[in-house]
Amino acid sequence: MSYAYKVKPGDKVRLSSFDPKEHAGLSKDKAKDLTEDLGTEMASLQELLFAAGQTSLLIVLQGLDTSGKDGAIRSILTYANVQSCRVIPFKVPTSEELAHDFLWRVHRETPRSGAVSIFNRSHYEDVLIVRVHNLVPKQTWEQRYQQINQFEQLLISSGVLILKFFLHISKEEQRERLLEREKDPTKAWKLAVADWKEREHWDSYMDAYEDALTRCTTREAPWHIVPSDHKWFRNLAITQCIVESLRPFKDEWMKHLEKMGVEAKKELQKYRNGETGN
Amino acid sequence: MSYAYKVKPGDKVRLSSFDPKEHAGLSKDKAKDLTEDLGTEMASLQELLFAAGQTSLLIVLQGLDTSGKDGAIRSILTYANVQSCRVIPFKVPTSEELAHDFLWRVHRETPRSGAVSIFNRSHYEDVLIVRVHNLVPKQTWEQRYQQINQFEQLLISSGVLILKFFLHISKEEQRERLLEREKDPTKAWKLAVADWKEREHWDSYMDAYEDALTRCTTREAPWHIVPSDHKWFRNLAITQCIVESLRPFKDEWMKHLEKMGVEAKKELQKYRNGETGN
Repeated sequence: MSYAYKVKPGDKVRLSSFDPKEHAGLSKDKAKDLTEDLGTEMASLQELLFAAGQTSLLIVLQGLDTSGKDGAIRSILTYANVQSCRVIPFKVPTSEELAHDFLWRVHRETPRSGAVSIFNRSHYEDVLIVRVHNLVPKQTWEQRYQQINQFEQLLISSGVLILKFFLHISKEEQRERLLEREKDPTKAWKLAVADWKEREHWDSYMDAYEDALTRCTTREAPWHIVPSDHKWFRNLAITQCIVESLRPFKDEWMKHLEKMGVEAKKELQKYRNGETGN
Repeated sequence: MSYAYKVKPGDKVRLSSFDPKEHAGLSKDKAKDLTEDLGTEMASLQELLFAAGQTSLLIVLQGLDTSGKDGAIRSILTYANVQSCRVIPFKVPTSEELAHDFLWRVHRETPRSGAVSIFNRSHYEDVLIVRVHNLVPKQTWEQRYQQINQFEQLLISSGVLILKFFLHISKEEQRERLLEREKDPTKAWKLAVADWKEREHWDSYMDAYEDALTRCTTREAPWHIVPSDHKWFRNLAITQCIVESLRPFKDEWMKHLEKMGVEAKKELQKYRNGETGN
């Protein structure tokens, strides 16, 4: 079974139907053990992805403040080979970024063949925060859903696997986590009135997310809804999803590597024969 | 009248119907005078484009070897303000570029608001040289026409004006120009057997260009066929087309600038009043 819910094309997403506290009956310890095993498998799959160099992986993380995007990234990086894996945080756009179309800054950061890019926030902000705060006219953000689908299709056609995660937390859990920050001096830098103000738009965000998850789910680039009130379950669900998305390619990558190996050996043999001959 | 032929959506382009030697009955001197006048107008329109900062301009230059892309760029730059105008040549893709989708390297170079980008060759090479030399499977380049249209639509929706020029020369004129290079020691660096070999694919290139011009002409991003056997007529036709594309925006940009001016004056007045007050 999959711990995250994979949205299907045609689904009309209602976030209230998904329990952010879901943990599939697992204990924290059990979940951590499972994550450990899956993480190890993920690491070896990523090695293959890199070595075969045919496919690349784009992981998109979205979620409200405190939903655990940073934590999820830390969890992935525990296992990932950081040589071929980059984390790209998308902040408030710079003036240079705003002077281009909304996909310009994102397209630059897409992964090259064999590599992994993890987007901490993404082009989806342009139909989320931008929509909630009316930063552009409705007719502008309305056409972005289609533009996003076309852009993702372009990436897919050049061998990019796209995994999109919505970290789903409850409003109560967010409150706990914001209050938690106030107690922890090492998290003081994260304190902001803005977070509490943003929380007032909770319902608008839910609407915007439901639309994004509904309209930007395609067969090849679906959204995954990750119950995230329990951090350990969130990490498990994401790791599992990555592993299960990469696993079907294993044979293909292995075959490609073997073929490359055979060719490399031939070259080597030629070189050695030449050396002996001279 | 327009000196270049603007392809209309739905046109099935047959390049043999367009005379590369066309010069609209103009003499070289007359054409140069006209280019001079239009060039001056182009310069002031570009100033407005830059100052208003709402729109940007993307000029795409395509054509076979010796068709005069470099010469056309020199002619444009005679008048253009180079502060806000960049020329981007697209060469054989690097390994980094090949490791991404074909639009990746192009998207990075699109103009910011107010600016002009001139592409010397472009994303169209991926349905031209790539198609003629079978560098990717047909099913890959087949889908690129649509991907190009969607990409250009994205740019248009964020305020980019797109002008695409096909520099149309005759096969005889190309021969003359290649032979010319052999005589001129300052052009010796341009000599290449590859140019003569590429010329053997003339008909395949014509087919590929006809398809690109037919399938990637939209109402907002049409192709322009520029008779280019006469360099002075080519320069005139391109300059005219740029001017006529920018001219309709003049009033809008002027109004925007006036509005900005009024606001700036108010700010200044506030500042001065404050100063007197203190």
